[in-house]
Amino acid sequence: MAPKTAVVHLVLVPLLSLILPFSSLALTQDFCVADLLLSDTPSGYPCKPKALVDSNDFYSDALSKPGPVIVPFNIGLASATVEQYPGLNGLGLAATRVDFPPGGVVPLHTHPEASELLFVVEGKLSAGFISADTNIPYVKTLKKGDLFVFPQGLLHFQYNIGNSTAIAFAAYSSPNPGLQVTDYALFRNALPADVVAKLTFIVRAEVERLKRFFGIV
Amino acid sequence: MAPKTAVVHLVLVPLLSLILPFSSLALTQDFCVADLLLSDTPSGYPCKPKALVDSNDFYSDALSKPGPVIVPFNIGLASATVEQYPGLNGLGLAATRVDFPPGGVVPLHTHPEASELLFVVEGKLSAGFISADTNIPYVKTLKKGDLFVFPQGLLHFQYNIGNSTAIAFAAYSSPNPGLQVTDYALFRNALPADVVAKLTFIVRAEVERLKRFFGIV
Amino acid sequence: MAPKTAVVHLVLVPLLSLILPFSSLALTQDFCVADLLLSDTPSGYPCKPKALVDSNDFYSDALSKPGPVIVPFNIGLASATVEQYPGLNGLGLAATRVDFPPGGVVPLHTHPEASELLFVVEGKLSAGFISADTNIPYVKTLKKGDLFVFPQGLLHFQYNIGNSTAIAFAAYSSPNPGLQVTDYALFRNALPADVVAKLTFIVRAEVERLKRFFGIV
Amino acid sequence: MAPKTAVVHLVLVPLLSLILPFSSLALTQDFCVADLLLSDTPSGYPCKPKALVDSNDFYSDALSKPGPVIVPFNIGLASATVEQYPGLNGLGLAATRVDFPPGGVVPLHTHPEASELLFVVEGKLSAGFISADTNIPYVKTLKKGDLFVFPQGLLHFQYNIGNSTAIAFAAYSSPNPGLQVTDYALFRNALPADVVAKLTFIVRAEVERLKRFFGIV
Amino acid sequence: MAPKTAVVHLVLVPLLSLILPFSSLALTQDFCVADLLLSDTPSGYPCKPKALVDSNDFYSDALSKPGPVIVPFNIGLASATVEQYPGLNGLGLAATRVDFPPGGVVPLHTHPEASELLFVVEGKLSAGFISADTNIPYVKTLKKGDLFVFPQGLLHFQYNIGNSTAIAFAAYSSPNPGLQVTDYALFRNALPADVVAKLTFIVRAEVERLKRFFGIV
Amino acid sequence: MAPKTAVVHLVLVPLLSLILPFSSLALTQDFCVADLLLSDTPSGYPCKPKALVDSNDFYSDALSKPGPVIVPFNIGLASATVEQYPGLNGLGLAATRVDFPPGGVVPLHTHPEASELLFVVEGKLSAGFISADTNIPYVKTLKKGDLFVFPQGLLHFQYNIGNSTAIAFAAYSSPNPGLQVTDYALFRNALPADVVAKLTFIVRAEVERLKRFFGIV
Repeated sequence: MAPKTAVVHLVLVPLLSLILPFSSLALTQDFCVADLLLSDTPSGYPCKPKALVDSNDFYSDALSKPGPVIVPFNIGLASATVEQYPGLNGLGLAATRVDFPPGGVVPLHTHPEASELLFVVEGKLSAGFISADTNIPYVKTLKKGDLFVFPQGLLHFQYNIGNSTAIAFAAYSSPNPGLQVTDYALFRNALPADVVAKLTFIVRAEVERLKRFFGIV
Repeated sequence: MAPKTAVVHLVLVPLLSLILPFSSLALTQDFCVADLLLSDTPSGYPCKPKALVDSNDFYSDALSKPGPVIVPFNIGLASATVEQYPGLNGLGLAATRVDFPPGGVVPLHTHPEASELLFVVEGKLSAGFISADTNIPYVKTLKKGDLFVFPQGLLHFQYNIGNSTAIAFAAYSSPNPGLQVTDYALFRNALPADVVAKLTFIVRAEVERLKRFFGIV
Repeated sequence: MAPKTAVVHLVLVPLLSLILPFSSLALTQDFCVADLLLSDTPSGYPCKPKALVDSNDFYSDALSKPGPVIVPFNIGLASATVEQYPGLNGLGLAATRVDFPPGGVVPLHTHPEASELLFVVEGKLSAGFISADTNIPYVKTLKKGDLFVFPQGLLHFQYNIGNSTAIAFAAYSSPNPGLQVTDYALFRNALPADVVAKLTFIVRAEVERLKRFFGIV
Repeated sequence: MAPKTAVVHLVLVPLLSLILPFSSLALTQDFCVADLLLSDTPSGYPCKPKALVDSNDFYSDALSKPGPVIVPFNIGLASATVEQYPGLNGLGLAATRVDFPPGGVVPLHTHPEASELLFVVEGKLSAGFISADTNIPYVKTLKKGDLFVFPQGLLHFQYNIGNSTAIAFAAYSSPNPGLQVTDYALFRNALPADVVAKLTFIVRAEVERLKRFFGIV
Repeated sequence: MAPKTAVVHLVLVPLLSLILPFSSLALTQDFCVADLLLSDTPSGYPCKPKALVDSNDFYSDALSKPGPVIVPFNIGLASATVEQYPGLNGLGLAATRVDFPPGGVVPLHTHPEASELLFVVEGKLSAGFISADTNIPYVKTLKKGDLFVFPQGLLHFQYNIGNSTAIAFAAYSSPNPGLQVTDYALFRNALPADVVAKLTFIVRAEVERLKRFFGIV
Repeated sequence: MAPKTAVVHLVLVPLLSLILPFSSLALTQDFCVADLLLSDTPSGYPCKPKALVDSNDFYSDALSKPGPVIVPFNIGLASATVEQYPGLNGLGLAATRVDFPPGGVVPLHTHPEASELLFVVEGKLSAGFISADTNIPYVKTLKKGDLFVFPQGLLHFQYNIGNSTAIAFAAYSSPNPGLQVTDYALFRNALPADVVAKLTFIVRAEVERLKRFFGIV
């Protein structure tokens, strides 16, 4: 919401409540478009006043083209979660788009707050997740039109195994699925190299190399 | 699961529990692939024994080509819900694919148990839903790459407004979203025409025409 | 709560928070009476400060007499949902009262966010709902003292089949059940008649008649 | 369900699954009528096969007349919870009816799994609950047509304060609200009198009198 | 995080929000530390801005020593619920510590919003709960290292049955479990003695004695 | 439950239902002790018949002494989750105990289905988690009596930073929290070394060393 709209909002809402005898009805929860100016809660953002909601709140073109490239994974990642797409608030859904040039990889990661359903629209991917209790990898080769589901919170991955670009869309079971990339969590932060080595059993020299690789000197 | 596999299952599981000292761990809920031979519960199907789960349970090609055509809506509809795709059980996600030839329409309908996130992969659609409390229609024209979200339980629709085939994928916030097509609920059942007329205020002759149209003589 | 008490409260609460080292305990959630002045959230309204809550927040006489008549359905409808009855907030319950003169009908509708349990206190009704997947109508004749339950999100109806007034109370599984009247959603809004005809297969002339009938010229 | 029906059930279901090509659709969860012959789960009972469901599953006349009298409370109590009314399963609702002759009292009790919305249809009651954190009683006098809501898990009560019979209906936010009558929990069980005295600070002689009063010698 | 870092943050965050187009990502819900200055909601408190969160929000020493003594129960009670420990918000957990000198007793009480898992770290306790539907007491003698679980909303108790101090820690399935002590709810409030007698069947003289005992004259 | 008990169970339950006129009441959900012989569901195990439940179902001594040592982490781990402790079923709680000799470490891991509240009963630990969106580590030094909470699904760790044994108890917000040890998920399974290298950016030689280290040749 642009600052200018916010001002209109402050003026408009009290007026509307004077004019419209049934305006309290307009607060009921058919839907609850996020008011991103207010603090989030454990169940999602407070609702934007219904009088200010229009069809654009339920619409997004955030996935209509490849997202920014993430070096060194060699993928483009575009997101449509509640932060970009406030109409998702409270509805238990979000989406992303991944573009994989040849060699592109979504490395091991988790979504702490959602399961993921992947749909391949172009190319050929290897995708899988690792069971927490048995460490068994469940892996499949996916081609155009295939679906694969990754259960909530489990480590999973996708990578291009073809010679051309692959494109996939992912739907999530939360407007805010979260994303914890294992490499970033291990190497791209302020934890000292010896602590990371102790917590992962990776040799310290390799931890230091990876910290440099991910931009932490 | 083929009947033959089911028999194997009955033999295998007790044996496994004798052989594997840690087999009880194999029951924990990293995931809960539906055992469709058992009765559903309010939270989903009981879990298939983990020893019988493999990566195919998390995979589906049900949306890789257009689904069966639904006359008279002139659309193809393919579904990937828990009944066809048992790995979705308990994970809060399902999907469908709709192919719209020119003139194709998904008429007014609701999903009683889920919100829907639509993604257009081909062509041009008009899509919208109707607010319950204000009866305001929230409608947008969607082109390739666009998203639109339909809040749980509200009447909504999509139809092709271009000259070529349109294709869309929908993700749902439940492995079992349900589908109540208003026309079917009103005209394609055993309710007498005069009762339907009383409950909808549509004139009886039109109700009777629609009952015939939808195959109820 | 009388206005005078409210003033006292505005003075008292900040003072209390200075005096009482344990006053924060008074914020815990035994209950969470809706503060209707704040924005709703996906789990309900923020809680009114506990020091301002009294027994009237948990009480309502909104159903003690027939509600306003809804022409042309020939029913009186009174509501006790969180908007009128803030003590319901967060408690998973609401209620309505319907008075049916002879000929009165609650036409086909859904509650997107709740199941409904109907209790007949006077007269004789026909009540039913339509299954989403099979289109089977589940219908019963109800007399004084009978209960009927309508599952969440499914199209349902009630109408007087006696010669005298019928009265029923309904309880809902949400403080904010929502109400989508199919006739209103189809005919009482800004959707053009030809779009409605396309989305429902009802002939355009009948759509136009119903739009006029429901007050949309 | 009578034993004879259960046998029919066992024969019928496998046959149906052979005959009906779409029978798997019949398992989806528009609703989930309790199959009381199977074990309950934390989310409710497994669902009865949809082919065996009819409109009687959603209907109950359990509250159409006063329930059995509970001496010494001098009330009649009739219940419509999932055990008596399997259509409620998974729908978050149940109901009871209480008939209070003059002097009748529903003594202090809790519903561990539900909030309660009381509706008075006859007579005059005093009703209230006690806040857990502040011990403040929230009490109101209720007359015909009045509602009062009791938040989940809190001690509450109702008693007739008029000269004629009072009748009230209660709706609950669970198909299985539970009922813990404080007097029964304290005095009508195998706990020795001295333990109860220690746990309640009531003098032992009074504990022993109440144990006898509630039928525990 | 050292105080100095906290200062850097106060400066840095507003700046970051100007510089970084993706700074809104910092609002997503990895966690939602309670902002206790805002109103609670049915799902918990609104989240404190992430830039103001540090590791102390997830830490508490509230249970490191015995809590204040509660006369006349002869126990020390220390609490770590969301009010004292805002990092618990939205995470479904809280804890308390009870120190029982010989003769110490936690009298009959309920937690309206949580189950409890008790862990004995010192001494010997008798602990149990009373089933709501059957009034059966489930009781065990617990020694150092033992666990006992009390289901949500049911009356339960613990008392020292040894000759030395006992210490126990309890975990709850909610950041805000609530606590309703039966004695306080019955005797330590403004309900007149004759009403309490009517609602509990305890003789009035004993009610009056207990009201005095709990400090209500 | 031993097989012999299961047989008794099959005989006993039908008999009980004949003898006890109120036995249907005995099925209601005050609690739902897991029947581990039946298939799990997304909400937990089906309930053991109430007539077979006794106080031992709610009791566990699984944490009364150190659990089996996990080489090479140099810790003892004892678990009390629903698999070992069926009374936890449906109650949203579980627990573990970790004994850390000097040098002992719980390496980076997640609980996909629960938050964790750690309580230190002996010694001195460093404990922390890593935020998913910012990669910030939230770390604290913990001593006897301290609490630290780890939000659901986030990578976290604990290690002994003292010279003597440390002991900690952890409570979880689910009867089945799950445990995904990053090292195990990366190195102790059938994924080829080159795939792991591609998915983690760790050099292949180090991946191979770690695979050998964790027992995969």
